[in-house]
Amino acid sequence: MQEDLLKNIISHAKEYGYVFPSSEIYDGLSATYDYGQYGSELKNNIKKYWWDSMVRLNENIVGIDAAIFMHPKTWKASGHVDAFNDPLIDNKDSKKRYRADVLIEEHVEKINQKIQKDVDKAAKRFGDSFDEAQFRSTNGRIIERQAKIDAINARFKKAMDDENLADVKTLIEEEGITCPVSGSKNWTEVRQFNLMFKTELGSVSGDAADIYLRPETAQGIFVNFLNVFKTGRMKIPFGIAQIGKAFRNEIVARQFIFRMREFEQMEMQFFVKPGTEMEWYEHWKNQRIKWHKSLGLGEENYRFHDHLKLAHYANAAADIEFNFPMGFKELEGIHSRTDFDLKQHEEYSGKKLRYFDNEDNESLVPYVVETSIGLDRMFLAVLSSAFKEEKLEDGSSRTVLALPPALAPVKVAILPLVKKDGLPEKAREIFDLLKLDFALQYDEKDAIGKRYRRQDAIGTPYCITVDHDTLENNTVTIRERDSMTQERVEISKLWDIVDGKVNMKNLLKQL
Amino acid sequence: MQEDLLKNIISHAKEYGYVFPSSEIYDGLSATYDYGQYGSELKNNIKKYWWDSMVRLNENIVGIDAAIFMHPKTWKASGHVDAFNDPLIDNKDSKKRYRADVLIEEHVEKINQKIQKDVDKAAKRFGDSFDEAQFRSTNGRIIERQAKIDAINARFKKAMDDENLADVKTLIEEEGITCPVSGSKNWTEVRQFNLMFKTELGSVSGDAADIYLRPETAQGIFVNFLNVFKTGRMKIPFGIAQIGKAFRNEIVARQFIFRMREFEQMEMQFFVKPGTEMEWYEHWKNQRIKWHKSLGLGEENYRFHDHLKLAHYANAAADIEFNFPMGFKELEGIHSRTDFDLKQHEEYSGKKLRYFDNEDNESLVPYVVETSIGLDRMFLAVLSSAFKEEKLEDGSSRTVLALPPALAPVKVAILPLVKKDGLPEKAREIFDLLKLDFALQYDEKDAIGKRYRRQDAIGTPYCITVDHDTLENNTVTIRERDSMTQERVEISKLWDIVDGKVNMKNLLKQL
Repeated sequence: MQEDLLKNIISHAKEYGYVFPSSEIYDGLSATYDYGQYGSELKNNIKKYWWDSMVRLNENIVGIDAAIFMHPKTWKASGHVDAFNDPLIDNKDSKKRYRADVLIEEHVEKINQKIQKDVDKAAKRFGDSFDEAQFRSTNGRIIERQAKIDAINARFKKAMDDENLADVKTLIEEEGITCPVSGSKNWTEVRQFNLMFKTELGSVSGDAADIYLRPETAQGIFVNFLNVFKTGRMKIPFGIAQIGKAFRNEIVARQFIFRMREFEQMEMQFFVKPGTEMEWYEHWKNQRIKWHKSLGLGEENYRFHDHLKLAHYANAAADIEFNFPMGFKELEGIHSRTDFDLKQHEEYSGKKLRYFDNEDNESLVPYVVETSIGLDRMFLAVLSSAFKEEKLEDGSSRTVLALPPALAPVKVAILPLVKKDGLPEKAREIFDLLKLDFALQYDEKDAIGKRYRRQDAIGTPYCITVDHDTLENNTVTIRERDSMTQERVEISKLWDIVDGKVNMKNLLKQL
Repeated sequence: MQEDLLKNIISHAKEYGYVFPSSEIYDGLSATYDYGQYGSELKNNIKKYWWDSMVRLNENIVGIDAAIFMHPKTWKASGHVDAFNDPLIDNKDSKKRYRADVLIEEHVEKINQKIQKDVDKAAKRFGDSFDEAQFRSTNGRIIERQAKIDAINARFKKAMDDENLADVKTLIEEEGITCPVSGSKNWTEVRQFNLMFKTELGSVSGDAADIYLRPETAQGIFVNFLNVFKTGRMKIPFGIAQIGKAFRNEIVARQFIFRMREFEQMEMQFFVKPGTEMEWYEHWKNQRIKWHKSLGLGEENYRFHDHLKLAHYANAAADIEFNFPMGFKELEGIHSRTDFDLKQHEEYSGKKLRYFDNEDNESLVPYVVETSIGLDRMFLAVLSSAFKEEKLEDGSSRTVLALPPALAPVKVAILPLVKKDGLPEKAREIFDLLKLDFALQYDEKDAIGKRYRRQDAIGTPYCITVDHDTLENNTVTIRERDSMTQERVEISKLWDIVDGKVNMKNLLKQL
């Protein structure tokens, strides 16, 4: 059902110029997508809302735009060269490659399903009197299987921690895990595969160097910390915001634009006095969820997921999860990154990345609280929650994108009721009145009902219809997309009405 | 002198948060730069002005945002895999690598300088009666040298046309061209070096593929032509606009942000009926120069350069050159690209990339007129023409960035004259009045004169100063950056005044 929903959204996104498969005439490029004529506008609007909410509303946050190419030492310092890996294994018969951790996870899941089967059977047998916890803790077969699961997980964790990849292979072999394609146990060694894309910069011998496409935009902020701090006359606490592309050679990229190998991030790194990071972490959790909810995609579609297992650089972390068609998934991360990154860059660069703390009277490496959101995921969140297939009272149906008006690619469609009697000319006058301030579309083709449906499918929040009365009394109807109600208003008041409904400023004011 | 100017601009750009060397704490990455807190805003404003002028002002132009990763066949079809090369040669003693064509060019230039020396000597001897043309055509040594130059050029051209790289090497050897570093003639073979960055996508055997970082954004438009044409209900003629990163592994990247290996393009491909391309070519030449001139960077700083030697895909091409600190250089290209690209993609994809022409009653591959501007170059054009070091009447001097107000990163600085007597509070009220519509900066530190200088250096077009009179009569002074004149205005009129001066709409209206 939900899978159908995602399929319908993907198909609508293509049909209405939001998202096209990349290089589609060449049958596409795996997990890569292009934003079409409406998609690029929606994406730009999301960027603007994020950027303005960060940089315009916070005097102590400024933006930067760092290059995708960075000095390779950056990724040594950040840990990506050594640790941004997935363990891979090939089946020699099918020649298929797998993530070793995924093979093991799936194997564990199968055992788990067997346990569940026993539980379900017992539940059926015992009915209301069934106590699952008790059953699990007393049934011999289940206890054995659970012990097996725990043992596999522990051994895998230890092998990975010890970088003992040979034992990962032995584990796979001993567990009798087979290739889903060939069915054989004929496995290669396990080896680490780095997720960064590598390329060679420069052509002149002495000058050529392996460089990486950045796997995250954050490091572009960290290496510029001192430059911005000094030239921007900033004081701790302050933030640096950035929107830009990042690249990860994911083994399995999937779920439309949710996980792509080329994607875009909107990140803000907030530099604070050590010891104050938990206050700021809470502050930014609150700010970010407020930002999301301001868009009106439905408060029930968000939840926080606090990380129990923290990354090595973090002392607190939470995700804002969104209810995508695939279920609740990470949309944004808020991380208290400590001074890990700046200290690493100090060590690798030999430069001091500090500020002078007047209270403590010493130079300190600031702590960092990060807010990091996937722009493409945000796009999918907006698109998927906006997508609705409605049955109407008259028995007909419509597909509508109930996009937040401030984000909609087209704000207003201007429609002359008929293509004659001077209505197109009058409609053009209104078009010219609004066009410099609002993204408009003029459409005079087909019956008015069909044109409304077209605008619904694009997600245009308002349609202005010019009819014969318009010529008499300088009024038009303005139709609202979601309610489909129409109101008659004076042309002289149109600019203010539209501005009040679609201007992003109205959202910013609420933050 | 001009070189000093460029140096000063680079240093100002760094000192005031416009452009930082990339990964500077690691001593930078060759020819890569990051945009700082003001630079990123200026860049965004340039993007917005271009995008709005294309997409907002032209109903038949829409935008897209295609991925950097594209199917590799795209670059086979476009010719980049086979022909986007530079011929390279290494000196075996110094291990230095050179572009063979540049070595030959420099060699020819040396011969040319010898000719010029003879000409100069003769001019000195003969004085006013010297006829240079006659001298050149009669002096034996000059005739001989000129013939040599012509022979070298012809042989090089033929060797390149015939892909006879061995003869390019022989030519270098026979001409006795030495390595500037080792002084030796110990050369390797000449080979073609492709300027595209290559990387490997995917990790799963069957799925992995060499892909390229796009060397131009144009192809992202061409492969999406049909999708946009159909889903956008477009009619020929129509255009597709795009802003995005492109990458070229230039042998020699230099001149600050003018030639980088990672750069950003703003391109619009306009699809027209075959046979009408010259009209549209002229139309877009006119439109683009008008766009540039609307910014007020000085009409004398632009000139057209018509290409005499056309690329294989073009039947007309011109550059808009700008007077950079390094002299007049290409800023934007307007090219009539014929149906070359679409036809190539038809051939390689097996798909029809056509529209039905109602007049001719047949399916046609549209012709394309392209406008392609380097965003980073545009940034440098704006920055370098805005940069001024002025002597003031009182003998002091100031550095000012006379940026077009609509593009300036900070539109208005709000300055309380002193940090007491309620002036900061009053200034804050004004700040809040304007902040949602205009990029502001609040500054209460240092004497007012120093603060004006700071805003001049950032390029802030207007300073609003709150003084003791403000508390009495609700008026403030508004100071204009370039003239340094101040005017007293009512606070209630501020919003309209500022809007009238800095709103990008005012520029768009002129187009």
